[in-house]
Amino acid sequence: MALFQAEEYFERIRNTKIRMAQAGIDVLIVSDPANMNYLTGYDGWSFYVPQAVVISLDSEQPVWIGRGMDAAGASHTTFLNEEHIIGYPDDYVQSSVKHPMNFVAEQIKRRGWDNRAIGVEMDAYYFSARGFVELRQDLPRADFKDGNLLVSWVRINKSDAEIEYMKQAGKICERVMQTALDNLSPGVRECDAVAAVYQTQMAGTAEFGGDYPAIVPMMPTGEKTSAPHLTWTDEPYENEQAVNLELAACRHRYHAPLARTAYLGKNPSQQLTRLAEHTVDGLNLTLEAIKPGLLCEEVEMVWRRHIAKAGLEKESRIGYSMGLNYPPDWGEHTASLRPGDKTVLAPNMTFHMILGMWMDNYGFECSESFRVTEDGCETLADFPRKLFVIN
Amino acid sequence: MALFQAEEYFERIRNTKIRMAQAGIDVLIVSDPANMNYLTGYDGWSFYVPQAVVISLDSEQPVWIGRGMDAAGASHTTFLNEEHIIGYPDDYVQSSVKHPMNFVAEQIKRRGWDNRAIGVEMDAYYFSARGFVELRQDLPRADFKDGNLLVSWVRINKSDAEIEYMKQAGKICERVMQTALDNLSPGVRECDAVAAVYQTQMAGTAEFGGDYPAIVPMMPTGEKTSAPHLTWTDEPYENEQAVNLELAACRHRYHAPLARTAYLGKNPSQQLTRLAEHTVDGLNLTLEAIKPGLLCEEVEMVWRRHIAKAGLEKESRIGYSMGLNYPPDWGEHTASLRPGDKTVLAPNMTFHMILGMWMDNYGFECSESFRVTEDGCETLADFPRKLFVIN
Repeated sequence: MALFQAEEYFERIRNTKIRMAQAGIDVLIVSDPANMNYLTGYDGWSFYVPQAVVISLDSEQPVWIGRGMDAAGASHTTFLNEEHIIGYPDDYVQSSVKHPMNFVAEQIKRRGWDNRAIGVEMDAYYFSARGFVELRQDLPRADFKDGNLLVSWVRINKSDAEIEYMKQAGKICERVMQTALDNLSPGVRECDAVAAVYQTQMAGTAEFGGDYPAIVPMMPTGEKTSAPHLTWTDEPYENEQAVNLELAACRHRYHAPLARTAYLGKNPSQQLTRLAEHTVDGLNLTLEAIKPGLLCEEVEMVWRRHIAKAGLEKESRIGYSMGLNYPPDWGEHTASLRPGDKTVLAPNMTFHMILGMWMDNYGFECSESFRVTEDGCETLADFPRKLFVIN
Repeated sequence: MALFQAEEYFERIRNTKIRMAQAGIDVLIVSDPANMNYLTGYDGWSFYVPQAVVISLDSEQPVWIGRGMDAAGASHTTFLNEEHIIGYPDDYVQSSVKHPMNFVAEQIKRRGWDNRAIGVEMDAYYFSARGFVELRQDLPRADFKDGNLLVSWVRINKSDAEIEYMKQAGKICERVMQTALDNLSPGVRECDAVAAVYQTQMAGTAEFGGDYPAIVPMMPTGEKTSAPHLTWTDEPYENEQAVNLELAACRHRYHAPLARTAYLGKNPSQQLTRLAEHTVDGLNLTLEAIKPGLLCEEVEMVWRRHIAKAGLEKESRIGYSMGLNYPPDWGEHTASLRPGDKTVLAPNMTFHMILGMWMDNYGFECSESFRVTEDGCETLADFPRKLFVIN
């Protein structure tokens, strides 16, 4: 049974079709697993083989096309009728002579859609260059268009039902962050602290369990804090060191990320303490400024002005839309809190605002995941904003 | 510091160049994160943005090209000199007006490689259709060739140093499987059993910690066992039900997967018990037959003949080469244990042989990860092969 009511999926499909019509796309081949889930409910770890949800302006239900052995999973998790679930034979898998997108093309021909304007998600994860070439060869009469992020832009506005799962993820995330802090201590191996974090991510709360986040826990320390995407080692945490905690929780594929900074030891430098206070002030100030109608770039400007007073600036964006997702990223790749982004904030948009300030040899980061409300914003998790000194 | 000696990376590069020359490829753009790691040591959770290792026949060291903020991670984890680590500016990230592959193309031009035969991994994860189109537009003088799996076929032969990490993963995996069995009980929520498994995967042993496997733990029960890639829920395990355990451990990105079947309750059906015995006999028999010189299809034939005696057959392949990898798959997509696969087994090839037998309303699976030795094979983990009855 799908996670949401069928009516909710049909509304998502309607909103997608409006954007398709605007973009001159008759048939959209959706390969991004988050977009596939969004339109049908499909949820499975099967995106390591090519698969798609195909949505046509003239058809009420989308068609799920995937590996034959995953059709049962599609029946189990989507709202689709059985005739809209099509599995391809297993000899398409990792074959040197044929490709699953040949099968998808065949299904499109069979429905008489092959002379239409066909959208594909050109930059989506799991839609390969080969897949595109095969589709183009098999569908010579089609007019291919880039439908990248088309569904993702529909996803930016969450329903109340989606928000409910994100709040549950926020509740789990409070426990995840507390677990990390409880397990940080000089001499503890990084892998053991990460293990405790994973345990809490999946166990969730007594009321609701957790799902796997789209990004692994990041808990770097020492010189690794300057290399943001290195994962953990067997090395023990050391005394008088800062640790960056970039964590998240996930509930039914909906995320609540949260970042904090901890300091192991008694003597955080005055520089670090001051940077922490200044960053947290900026986070509070920026959250307070958020309300519907504001542009994304205006949110960033609040922060930018605040840190300019201390003679600081931050090059990269300070946040991004997020929610439903799969590895390798929980971000939606749509709106960003950065200069030039004219996206207008509206109720039930959800962002991760992450303020990471990196100096030459020290740094501090603090983040919140929040929902835009009718007159402001609310965070998904409730967790103190400060430098955590652990000694 | 890179995980292996520089000499080992140079040997991998030499073997890659031999295959490049055979395929008529002068310059290979490697986007598969496992292949990038294999050739340079690069290890980071940064594959959610486009990145590449570019290897040219006329150049000793490959060039790592990635997001600017990940260049420090490349310095930290690769054997490359600083001048072979090139970061692109952050305004290439998720931009609507330019793409990181434009930057890669520029680097190729700058080196005078743009009139060469350029290989790209057409079906690799994380090399998008858009990335390919951008490269082709920016490099009109290049002769593009498909270099898909070229490096992966080099990876199939593991070094002794790689085998050492896979054996460590095997040791961790024994604990992972035992943890799963210890936590399976009627009334326990699926998410809690999975949480315990994750904890053990990362904590590893006292001697060596664990890394995140490329696939999440699969522990389905009841009707979900017929939908192989659905992940866990909050539902409690029930009495008198079978549970499929498809687990793994990972050490420095090297995997050891392992599958077993457990039965919760006192009364597994005679059918199930018989199927388990027959499958385990077949697994033992097939492992005993393995030796260098055998073809992959001959290994499968041993199994096929065994189950035919019981009037059974199995449609899908019974195993595949695996080792170093990243989400979403630990399989290497090269050799498979299946009819028609003429790959000749050689010492230090490593496979996951997984025998899943699915009847209408019951099933059993059992697997081993193994290394081909000088005169046979050895499994990476040492764990009983049987139906585990938990009551």
